[in-house]
Amino acid sequence: MDNLKEDVAEFRENKHNVDPLFLNRWSPRAMSGESIDDKELMALFEAARWAPSSYNNQSWRFVYAKRDEENWDNFLDLLVDGNKVWAKNGSALVVILSKKTFDYNGKFSRTHSFDTGAAWQNFALEGSRRGLVVHGMQGFDYEKAHTLVDADEELEVEAMVVVGKPGKVESLPKDLREGEKPSGRKNLDKIVFNGSF
Amino acid sequence: MDNLKEDVAEFRENKHNVDPLFLNRWSPRAMSGESIDDKELMALFEAARWAPSSYNNQSWRFVYAKRDEENWDNFLDLLVDGNKVWAKNGSALVVILSKKTFDYNGKFSRTHSFDTGAAWQNFALEGSRRGLVVHGMQGFDYEKAHTLVDADEELEVEAMVVVGKPGKVESLPKDLREGEKPSGRKNLDKIVFNGSF
Repeated sequence: MDNLKEDVAEFRENKHNVDPLFLNRWSPRAMSGESIDDKELMALFEAARWAPSSYNNQSWRFVYAKRDEENWDNFLDLLVDGNKVWAKNGSALVVILSKKTFDYNGKFSRTHSFDTGAAWQNFALEGSRRGLVVHGMQGFDYEKAHTLVDADEELEVEAMVVVGKPGKVESLPKDLREGEKPSGRKNLDKIVFNGSF
Repeated sequence: MDNLKEDVAEFRENKHNVDPLFLNRWSPRAMSGESIDDKELMALFEAARWAPSSYNNQSWRFVYAKRDEENWDNFLDLLVDGNKVWAKNGSALVVILSKKTFDYNGKFSRTHSFDTGAAWQNFALEGSRRGLVVHGMQGFDYEKAHTLVDADEELEVEAMVVVGKPGKVESLPKDLREGEKPSGRKNLDKIVFNGSF
């Protein structure tokens, strides 16, 4: 019994007996257009908060807009059309940024993006665990996002995320319906090497 | 009942009812010097494999040396003395790298570090779940690491990790013993913002 969700078990196999949380998470696009309450959304940020980081610097920053808020349209407008068409049914949009410097000495932190990616993964896993759609995106205007959230120069935009309640596949444009399933991965021997490449 | 481990419950509180996996993970230094078998170690890479990434590019790469292998000393020598002194009791050392370009078109992927950080977090969480010490490090020679693992120019070194079996706090140098406990985090209102900073 590997506890894979039904929609995942068809596509992924838990060969190494890892926490099913990792395999159960994927990135759907179909969302219902419902709202999300603050308590639910904050739990995802809370999970992100506990990620590790160099000198515990916690470089991650999150700026969000919920669909029933005045900022929603501006956040949605950051996305490329290919993302806008489905992300519009989300409950919240989040801009993820990282602080490029250490708090304690102001110097450059070379792991600021890497560490922020760790926090993002906690965010995604907790959302998946709660039955939410959590879908990261790179298809948006990074410069406009930096300006819109009023980020200072020490902050770099890393990604955007849409969080939503699951919706029907039929609600997606036709060309996106076929891809609405858990994706595969490279074999371990393509990413793990003993001693050297 | 929030399922926090005993050594964690004293320092952390699961206020938002997130998966205890996130709070139970921390970065100990005390390790026993025991070996780890391949099956156990591979499970951590397997967890990493299922992280999300832009265009499912899976930019993460891992090069490892186990303590009973000839490459161990060379990997250990990459570390600064402050890390070497305790990491020497680990079971495996891992250099984490990211591929800076997309497989499908060779173009630069701006999320290569961020995505690799997501995979690293899966790795760390699965290790913690299995009762292993998993400790990320930035204190090492990045250039030498790149050369040692024979990485090509498309690959960037992101971090190193030591994986080990838990050891006794008394085995650590005196100045490290006091810090051998789960660390705190910034409050949510320092990292999460509605609409803009």
